[in-house]
Amino acid sequence: MAGAETVKRLLIGRALRTEQLDATALPKRIALPLFCSDPISSVAYATEEIVLVLAAGGAAYLTLSKWVAAAVAALLLIVVASYRQTCREYPNGGGAFAVSLDNFGERTALVAASALLVDYVMTVVVSVVSGVVAITSTAPSLSRHAVPISVGLVVLLTVTNLRGLQQSGRSFAAPTYLFIGLTFLLFAVGTVKGITGQLPDASTAHQQLHRTAEVGGGFTLLLTLRAFASGCTALTGVEAISNGVPSFRPPRSRNAANTLGVMGGLAVSMFVGITVLALHLHAHAQPTGTPSVISQVAGSVFGAHALLFYVYQAATAGILILAANTAFNGFPALASVLARANYLPRQLDNRGGKLVFSNGIVVLSAVATLLIVGFHANLDRLIQLYIIGVFTSFTLSQAGMVRHWNRSLPVATRAHRRRISVSRAINGTGAAATAVVLVVVVYSKLTHGAWIAILGMSALFVLMRAIHRYYRAQESEIGLQATDRPVRPSRNHTIVLVSRVQLPTLRAVAYAESTRPTRLEALTVRIDDRATVSLSREWERHEISVPLVIIDSPYRELTRPVLDYIRALPDRGPRDVVTVIIPEYVAASWWEQLLHRQSALRLKARLLGEANVVVTSIAWHGTRRRRATEPASHHAIRAQRRVTTAGSSR
Amino acid sequence: MAGAETVKRLLIGRALRTEQLDATALPKRIALPLFCSDPISSVAYATEEIVLVLAAGGAAYLTLSKWVAAAVAALLLIVVASYRQTCREYPNGGGAFAVSLDNFGERTALVAASALLVDYVMTVVVSVVSGVVAITSTAPSLSRHAVPISVGLVVLLTVTNLRGLQQSGRSFAAPTYLFIGLTFLLFAVGTVKGITGQLPDASTAHQQLHRTAEVGGGFTLLLTLRAFASGCTALTGVEAISNGVPSFRPPRSRNAANTLGVMGGLAVSMFVGITVLALHLHAHAQPTGTPSVISQVAGSVFGAHALLFYVYQAATAGILILAANTAFNGFPALASVLARANYLPRQLDNRGGKLVFSNGIVVLSAVATLLIVGFHANLDRLIQLYIIGVFTSFTLSQAGMVRHWNRSLPVATRAHRRRISVSRAINGTGAAATAVVLVVVVYSKLTHGAWIAILGMSALFVLMRAIHRYYRAQESEIGLQATDRPVRPSRNHTIVLVSRVQLPTLRAVAYAESTRPTRLEALTVRIDDRATVSLSREWERHEISVPLVIIDSPYRELTRPVLDYIRALPDRGPRDVVTVIIPEYVAASWWEQLLHRQSALRLKARLLGEANVVVTSIAWHGTRRRRATEPASHHAIRAQRRVTTAGSSR
Repeated sequence: MAGAETVKRLLIGRALRTEQLDATALPKRIALPLFCSDPISSVAYATEEIVLVLAAGGAAYLTLSKWVAAAVAALLLIVVASYRQTCREYPNGGGAFAVSLDNFGERTALVAASALLVDYVMTVVVSVVSGVVAITSTAPSLSRHAVPISVGLVVLLTVTNLRGLQQSGRSFAAPTYLFIGLTFLLFAVGTVKGITGQLPDASTAHQQLHRTAEVGGGFTLLLTLRAFASGCTALTGVEAISNGVPSFRPPRSRNAANTLGVMGGLAVSMFVGITVLALHLHAHAQPTGTPSVISQVAGSVFGAHALLFYVYQAATAGILILAANTAFNGFPALASVLARANYLPRQLDNRGGKLVFSNGIVVLSAVATLLIVGFHANLDRLIQLYIIGVFTSFTLSQAGMVRHWNRSLPVATRAHRRRISVSRAINGTGAAATAVVLVVVVYSKLTHGAWIAILGMSALFVLMRAIHRYYRAQESEIGLQATDRPVRPSRNHTIVLVSRVQLPTLRAVAYAESTRPTRLEALTVRIDDRATVSLSREWERHEISVPLVIIDSPYRELTRPVLDYIRALPDRGPRDVVTVIIPEYVAASWWEQLLHRQSALRLKARLLGEANVVVTSIAWHGTRRRRATEPASHHAIRAQRRVTTAGSSR
Repeated sequence: MAGAETVKRLLIGRALRTEQLDATALPKRIALPLFCSDPISSVAYATEEIVLVLAAGGAAYLTLSKWVAAAVAALLLIVVASYRQTCREYPNGGGAFAVSLDNFGERTALVAASALLVDYVMTVVVSVVSGVVAITSTAPSLSRHAVPISVGLVVLLTVTNLRGLQQSGRSFAAPTYLFIGLTFLLFAVGTVKGITGQLPDASTAHQQLHRTAEVGGGFTLLLTLRAFASGCTALTGVEAISNGVPSFRPPRSRNAANTLGVMGGLAVSMFVGITVLALHLHAHAQPTGTPSVISQVAGSVFGAHALLFYVYQAATAGILILAANTAFNGFPALASVLARANYLPRQLDNRGGKLVFSNGIVVLSAVATLLIVGFHANLDRLIQLYIIGVFTSFTLSQAGMVRHWNRSLPVATRAHRRRISVSRAINGTGAAATAVVLVVVVYSKLTHGAWIAILGMSALFVLMRAIHRYYRAQESEIGLQATDRPVRPSRNHTIVLVSRVQLPTLRAVAYAESTRPTRLEALTVRIDDRATVSLSREWERHEISVPLVIIDSPYRELTRPVLDYIRALPDRGPRDVVTVIIPEYVAASWWEQLLHRQSALRLKARLLGEANVVVTSIAWHGTRRRRATEPASHHAIRAQRRVTTAGSSR
């Protein structure tokens, strides 16, 4: 025990007092890297996804890139604007779940919750694995170890998060700000070099494009939509802040909304900047993924062998891995909300020593590890399970907000109506756009693995409803009516289990007498004839007034005969109670405990399963180890001995 | 639970009643194969060991073989004669341990016991591995899997033995009698063919012998002694019957002694017969072990490709593996004797469902498996650990018998004195001979691995003394003086732990009131402020007269604040008791139980470690599953509900 506590202390740090919860509330400068590493990191690949899809239509279609990118940027702004409103309207967190619950009721809310939970898991998996891919493409010899490296990173994230929100915020702030700073440095250097004509084209600029797809009217639309859908990976993780409002420093809602606004501004400008540079430099996405578009841009601007280029590559890999952290904050918070509402096991609402929802963190990393190992850290297969959850929750959340505005409209003052109409328009546009993206994503990915994500969401949905039903049934089963009062048992038949006449036995009998049961007897199971004979002889010799009942055990069991005896007790009324008193010898150390039969443990477990049976353990403590290591309790032990031996002078 | 019971039933069979213990007593025809497969199987390699050692001195030395074999046969007869006397004098079993304990006291007896326990383990290991070597030398492709095959056989032996003595006796009788019968058939055919001149020499008869060792006076003696020591492998397992006397049908002593006599006669005649045939056919032992001397003899007599030859080979492999079974009977019986005398954990004296000492069987096979895996089933290295234990116990046992006779001599009648002198001479000769063998064995094997066996024996010796000390200390700690009587606690401060006001809470409070404690209070730990406020409100609303104490838990723990509260209770006298009543919700199925926090389990474990604290569990049973699968107890559950709701109409 002491060893385990020490390890825990070393990994997780000192426990925090509940009052410190406010002190762990996050200032914006820490909240930004903590909640936003996911959406900000996605600029590292969103441009690439668009260019890659459009390239299938040939060089002419690449000119559509800027329009598609503009649409993604616009959608990102709309979603950010929409979620800022959510932060204000729903300050207790919960994001899509809370909004759906409020506006559509339980079923829809659980769909949103399932989608979010699955998506959080996929965020961890995809971010960590793609970060590892970034590492292994610079050091190919490591690629054989992708699975252990990914799992190792998940474990590292788990420990970091178990250490508490603020600490993890701190350790994650540096790489995130480094990536943001370097990206804007990239834009500055690129602009200066572009104006002065020192900017070389991308390394792949003169590559021939081979049209790989049919061209035509309907196709143009479909390709554009698919490019748009792929670019929407830039939006993943936007909802994290709206779930995490309670983690912010007060005024929580305003700080959260503002942080979300800053994040949106950063993400859009970085995404647009990288896309403009990529198009200007004629960077082509490679089907193998290497070199990536962003690394081509950085190579052109900083110089392909400059130190800054390598630092930027490292920062990119770093922020991709840290993006997983967004989910490490979002998942436990949402799970705790669901647990408090009785949709998930209550243990997920326990705050651990560091005030974080430790169980949620552990569950998240366990599932993520399973997926990484099960899919052999294969990014291509894992990414198919992604995004569906995000856009399901986006659509539900924004449709919910539309409903929210519709309900507030009739009761609003005239001055407010205009603002509400604008808000509703923003949310309506967002809902429509994200719904379209959802359809496109499902259509294009279903057979490639997205069915696993949908299956997971459905399973979660069913499970959460079952858990809710169970808790509700249990509550009503043990809940009180207003007039319920404690009612004493009409009879208490107390049985003291004995095997030998020793000090613990006398103590148990004396205790039983002191509780004044309706009927009191001692019970022994005849397993060894000689031992039982000697027991009854001793029983008489020590003049114990409690009658001794001896029952047979033809198969030398202890538990079953006792259970049978209790079940067969005559005249048991519904308000009668049977109390079984078990004297236990607790050895002073675990190895000494090994030398004692553990029959009491099993017996207690079985007796707890019997109706109207109360189980009482009276421990007698072995003295050895305590004498050596806990001198303070030595006197208590001696005193314990005196309890019973004092009787001999009576 | 039900599943585990079914698997156990399938593997082990129906449980037996204690009264059936006499019915499982063994008739001699079953006891012989059961206890004697080890010594009888050793004729398969004893001759070979002698010839192999003497061959190192060149062809001239081989002529010594018959004298060495005669000496081994004589020693075998002496040891058998000696142990027959032990069976008669010590009818309660225990063999070398019982004899040493009776004649030399505890220390020597524990040396004998350690030697026997180690030797039983080695019997299992060496017999199984050599049986597997016999199999793999006929099917070399299997030799890569020697470890899993050996472990598989140990598991098979374990299950067979857990099924009970008589059943295992039956399944082992056939191969043993087959081997015995075929060996005597071998002698008959060999004699007839020898007389009629149809017997070809052994396949290795015309091999050139290369002297590999120095020749000289002292060397002759040493080589002869080493050959003799090696031949003494024939004696392993002779003591098993003397340990197993209580397993025989009455009259146990006589039946055991007679069975031992028959075994001795069989073993000596088979050993001598095979040695005579081997020398007559000029069979030479091969350093690689293949072909073995016994297979050369069988090849010459039956014909190298005859069906009988293959059957005989199979029977040889079979009896080698079954030899391990001797230890599966001896080890648990001895461990149980030692456990009853408080030298080993008491669990080793539990008779399982089949009346066998199940724990002993499991411990034996676990240690044997560890050795097989640890030594990669390498017979050469394992056999070095063998025999030391046997001869240690032989020497002690027979020396003990000499002492036994010395003590009976003065009190014997004149008529008996002569018989006692003869007996003492037999035992004395045996003790001297086995002591010499022990010295030779230790000398020649110590650096080759025998130190491991000696280390194991020493560790067991120390462990058994420590266990004995512990049990004795514990007995005296809790043992009673004649005048000890039950003494009631002077005060009983009862604490009901509560977290919400529900039916189980009311029931626990009512039960606590019914035990009429000196002081009664309800205790709750403030982890969630709102929950605690709602608890106190409900407490008042339901007019519960017991005072509610609220304690803080800054680190959101449950266990520690409760322990601290109890430890800090004022005015606790040495005869006071604190009773902690814990209402528990027992869900109807394991998956439902997962949905409840398991804090009660941990709390109970910690409370049991506190001095003068009594822990009472009051279970409330969830209804769902019971309603479905246990209709009979449905009424009890409904009744349970009525216990408390009936109070609402009061």
